[in-house]
Amino acid sequence: MYNKINSDDISVLRSIVGDSEVLVGDSISEDYSHDELGDVKKMPDVLVRVHTTEEVSAVMKHAWARSIPVTVRGSGTGLVGAAVPIEGGILLETTKMNKILSLDKNNLSVTVQPGVLLMELAAFAEENDFLYPPDPGEKSATIGGNISTNAGGMRAVKYGVTRDYVRALTVVMPNGDILNLGATVAKNSSGYSLKDLIIGSEGTLAIICEAVLKLLPLPKVSVSLLVPFPDMKTAIEAVPKIIRSKIIPTAIEYMSRDTILFSESYLGKKFPDTKNDAYILLTFDGNSDAQVAADMNTVAELCLEIGAKDAYIVDTDERKKAVWSARGAFLEAIKASTTEMDECDVVVPVDKVDAFIKYTHELADELKIRIPSFGHAGDGNLHVYICRDELSESDWRSTLKLCFDRMYEKAESLGGLVSGEHGIGYAKKEFLKKQLGDAQILLMQGIKKVFDEKNILNPGKICF
Amino acid sequence: MYNKINSDDISVLRSIVGDSEVLVGDSISEDYSHDELGDVKKMPDVLVRVHTTEEVSAVMKHAWARSIPVTVRGSGTGLVGAAVPIEGGILLETTKMNKILSLDKNNLSVTVQPGVLLMELAAFAEENDFLYPPDPGEKSATIGGNISTNAGGMRAVKYGVTRDYVRALTVVMPNGDILNLGATVAKNSSGYSLKDLIIGSEGTLAIICEAVLKLLPLPKVSVSLLVPFPDMKTAIEAVPKIIRSKIIPTAIEYMSRDTILFSESYLGKKFPDTKNDAYILLTFDGNSDAQVAADMNTVAELCLEIGAKDAYIVDTDERKKAVWSARGAFLEAIKASTTEMDECDVVVPVDKVDAFIKYTHELADELKIRIPSFGHAGDGNLHVYICRDELSESDWRSTLKLCFDRMYEKAESLGGLVSGEHGIGYAKKEFLKKQLGDAQILLMQGIKKVFDEKNILNPGKICF
Repeated sequence: MYNKINSDDISVLRSIVGDSEVLVGDSISEDYSHDELGDVKKMPDVLVRVHTTEEVSAVMKHAWARSIPVTVRGSGTGLVGAAVPIEGGILLETTKMNKILSLDKNNLSVTVQPGVLLMELAAFAEENDFLYPPDPGEKSATIGGNISTNAGGMRAVKYGVTRDYVRALTVVMPNGDILNLGATVAKNSSGYSLKDLIIGSEGTLAIICEAVLKLLPLPKVSVSLLVPFPDMKTAIEAVPKIIRSKIIPTAIEYMSRDTILFSESYLGKKFPDTKNDAYILLTFDGNSDAQVAADMNTVAELCLEIGAKDAYIVDTDERKKAVWSARGAFLEAIKASTTEMDECDVVVPVDKVDAFIKYTHELADELKIRIPSFGHAGDGNLHVYICRDELSESDWRSTLKLCFDRMYEKAESLGGLVSGEHGIGYAKKEFLKKQLGDAQILLMQGIKKVFDEKNILNPGKICF
Repeated sequence: MYNKINSDDISVLRSIVGDSEVLVGDSISEDYSHDELGDVKKMPDVLVRVHTTEEVSAVMKHAWARSIPVTVRGSGTGLVGAAVPIEGGILLETTKMNKILSLDKNNLSVTVQPGVLLMELAAFAEENDFLYPPDPGEKSATIGGNISTNAGGMRAVKYGVTRDYVRALTVVMPNGDILNLGATVAKNSSGYSLKDLIIGSEGTLAIICEAVLKLLPLPKVSVSLLVPFPDMKTAIEAVPKIIRSKIIPTAIEYMSRDTILFSESYLGKKFPDTKNDAYILLTFDGNSDAQVAADMNTVAELCLEIGAKDAYIVDTDERKKAVWSARGAFLEAIKASTTEMDECDVVVPVDKVDAFIKYTHELADELKIRIPSFGHAGDGNLHVYICRDELSESDWRSTLKLCFDRMYEKAESLGGLVSGEHGIGYAKKEFLKKQLGDAQILLMQGIKKVFDEKNILNPGKICF
């Protein structure tokens, strides 16, 4: 079905991107065989580092003609194996396409290459007094990866997700064609939204080579509030009440004492408060000090009425750093607390978060494993980690399978979905199939065939 | 290719929806042969009024088995012939699926049937202290129609378009399958976004039978500002300057004296000011009187510096009514000013609106026709009307063709797109093809085939 890479292919690839950007065999680091978490592993036959849209197009024209599979990789921070070249072939790395190409102040937009890191874009926007609102936890992910998973992040409560900020994309099709989708405009009713199909398609339909992203004026004020609760149930139950109060915080995160302690130990840094079982961390932003303070006070008082133990304003630089660096380290900290882990990032309606977390606790008791979690209480997207700890390989496999089956069933029964922002990739395919059913999977397979008749682009992901 | 409707089909349809909801022959009003503007005309063979998703499914199962074309129609307020049954067959009217099914205050969302009118949804949201942000000018359009065109409206500057507010859809496929796409959640990275493909697909891929829409808390303050300018150029040039000032108004509309005078004459009501050549109308909203007033003052001062003649705060009920009822009547008023007209709703980058309007004036002079326009200066979406006035049929056809060709070319050269919110339907197909090129049209055709192998659902629209 696919052709193996031969020495002629290597010559052609070298002629396209330059000798030093084509690596084969032992010269490819083992890192390229997997992503940040998944135990999905496979080495590519060749690693190709691209610099321009034209190079991507030339590589794809060759791969298409020769039926060689191609998998695109950004920073490799994914968690579901989407960037693992499970059929071998070419691994096409976009990290050198890392230029911020232009800032359009009249249209509040920025044009970037896909290898720009989220943290670079965020800093660039802020330096220019703008905000790029999507704020996923993994700041060293590439923008191409963020678009490919429709990443959400912490500010989705107020600002929405990556999809809401993509105005236009330049993509290279599996056959090498270069297409421009969308435009630097705020409205579009010009045929099927191919751009919205590419967003969240995890590198299976086309290769993102340029993106025009919407920016907002940088809010003048942004303050966080850390609210400790006696237990997780009370903490999480506060969230729909906050939302019903008609105040929209920028972010509402939840965290348990356990997770905070892992993070203290991992970072070697103290968190402002670890006396309580559960915490919510809120951010408020706006252009008026008075309005932001009033919103924050209303929410603080509401939380205290509900049973919060306190409400700390996170306003000093020191406290901001302590709180947000801890929040940023949760995944790594949990990882460091165990021998191996896997994760589930279901999304459920906001008023079902409590029920889902409660269920993970019951499951942990029943299966005798640890299932720490943290996440986006304000938008229903949870990051739940199943820890192997001392389990044998076979017990770990069977427990993990059972645990996943039960959690995804529970999420579905609560009106939720398999993934809020990490995607499906390779690792979550069976759960997606189970939830969506044959008709939707057949539609996705049909769409994939329309874009990629030869199935050379990131084969074996999402719906195949 | 298609089967003609026979008496057995009629019996089956009557058994599904009830005798009184199936109309044939002369009992179908001529209104059903066209939409609000287009001269695209065709009578359906049978008009079927549906009440439930199950009825829609049963109708489609029958139509699929018998290869009968089906076109869906809401209020018929479209402007590009998308709801005209150009192949005859069944016209499926959704206006009786007009229930607001539930309000979910914990998840800030409302579930509606497709036949709910925009004005009904807007009023329902407001009664419950919520805002449904999309605000297209045509308030008697159905929500199903709004979703099918990804309608934008006036508040897109601040709040985005219909797509941004659709959380989930229940759709009936051409073969009668019922699918649930998306969920009542804020994030989704669970496979290709079929929901986003349906949005803006103008009834060609599946039939929208239920929608979960996101709401926002109703802003406590909302005030408009009417700013007269000596000429259109100065008025429109103010808009990118306002946007660069980092204040985001809810809406920025532009209008010329001509258009206002048509509206005065059409409504028989006075507009607050008609002394000046050009006007922009801005709205500001928020939760703090002081903040909204400050934003408004900043913009008013900026406009006066640029050359505005005045800045009227539209705060009394009387003035609000005078201004907004005029704005709402522009389309009808222009229509009443001529014998026949056609329209173009291109969208261009905000800082190119001026260049586009100037071009329509040059074109009007060159072709010796009237081309009044108004629209959404703040998001680049223009509504441009080509008036027939006293032209003969053949002169009208040739002038219209030339005028459209030139305008769409100009929009493309400015980085714009064929349609901001009215869609492609039947009338704008050739312009879409010209702009997007073969590769994108082939992708769209391929997607259409995946959803509707027999091509029975709204055939002949968008890309075929």
